[in-house]
Amino acid sequence: MRLRLLEATVQCLAEHGWAGTSTTLISQRAGVSRGAQLHHFPTKTDLVVAAVEHLTLVRGDELALAAAALPTGPRRTRAVLEMLGDHFTSDVFVAALELWVAARTDPALLAVVGPFERVTGRETHKLTVEMLDADESQPGSRELVQATLDLIRGLGLANTISNDQARRSRILDRWAAVLDDELPRRSKEQG
Amino acid sequence: MRLRLLEATVQCLAEHGWAGTSTTLISQRAGVSRGAQLHHFPTKTDLVVAAVEHLTLVRGDELALAAAALPTGPRRTRAVLEMLGDHFTSDVFVAALELWVAARTDPALLAVVGPFERVTGRETHKLTVEMLDADESQPGSRELVQATLDLIRGLGLANTISNDQARRSRILDRWAAVLDDELPRRSKEQG
Repeated sequence: MRLRLLEATVQCLAEHGWAGTSTTLISQRAGVSRGAQLHHFPTKTDLVVAAVEHLTLVRGDELALAAAALPTGPRRTRAVLEMLGDHFTSDVFVAALELWVAARTDPALLAVVGPFERVTGRETHKLTVEMLDADESQPGSRELVQATLDLIRGLGLANTISNDQARRSRILDRWAAVLDDELPRRSKEQG
Repeated sequence: MRLRLLEATVQCLAEHGWAGTSTTLISQRAGVSRGAQLHHFPTKTDLVVAAVEHLTLVRGDELALAAAALPTGPRRTRAVLEMLGDHFTSDVFVAALELWVAARTDPALLAVVGPFERVTGRETHKLTVEMLDADESQPGSRELVQATLDLIRGLGLANTISNDQARRSRILDRWAAVLDDELPRRSKEQG
């Protein structure tokens, strides 16, 4: 029942936005009584933060599995970018974006979302370093991985109000070539 | 009076977000009567769209002026990125972000914001091509300019819930070096 509530919350945020997401709508969508919902999550903020935290963890596990299945060799960089692009255009990203923007002008929400976003950001950075086999001991390497994730976040934002897939694909082709030219790697096998 | 209303609207969006911005709050902030406001702008959507359109035009003029004052020579690329970074962390960007996210789940708002964002995007791209002296006839050049703007948009988003200036500055240092390596230019004077 807790899980159904969390998944319904992310779906509501993605479909109706922060302002359009009410605890009533979530309990209807999850098929859970209001009383049971209030028992698990007393406020909208409790519910929303638990939902995005939970599904980001699930998605993080999926990413780690997908990372293990990535090809090696010359196509690897582009495959990493494709995977990240998929992640940052998913319903989970869109739900997180709604929270992020709402938190900007809601101090109580920001107090919860802020620290959570910092942890998520660090974990995504670490996974990306591993996937790209980046050598962070070399100058400029860390910043290029950060730029990659900020690019992908910008592409995620661009995709929210129109289907941006064709343009995104061409940009990621070019970015993969840039990384293969510019990013120092730990081993010489890839890139 | 129209101008005061438009500027108050952008300030309210930046400070209180889309959901927290009411026509009452805007008229108070602008020091304009409700009657006069309703005469100029019958709905919140009319007011908000006119305000962001107006201030993006003003900001576009400021960008064009700043572009004319950019240094030439080896420091030019970094100066262009600094200027764009300032633009995408301003109150005008934050107000546009609020509209963008609200439009995602509000079809009436999207019908107005969508076409406006496409025009703005094209103009910013064109200006960036000029500022960087990019040769778009060369393969991959267009995508590298697009990637630059998507990176800057991602950095703008990252800056909304924490002051990200130091990190952004290091990333833009690195990205300027990449562009100088990778971006084909029309003349050979720069980069």
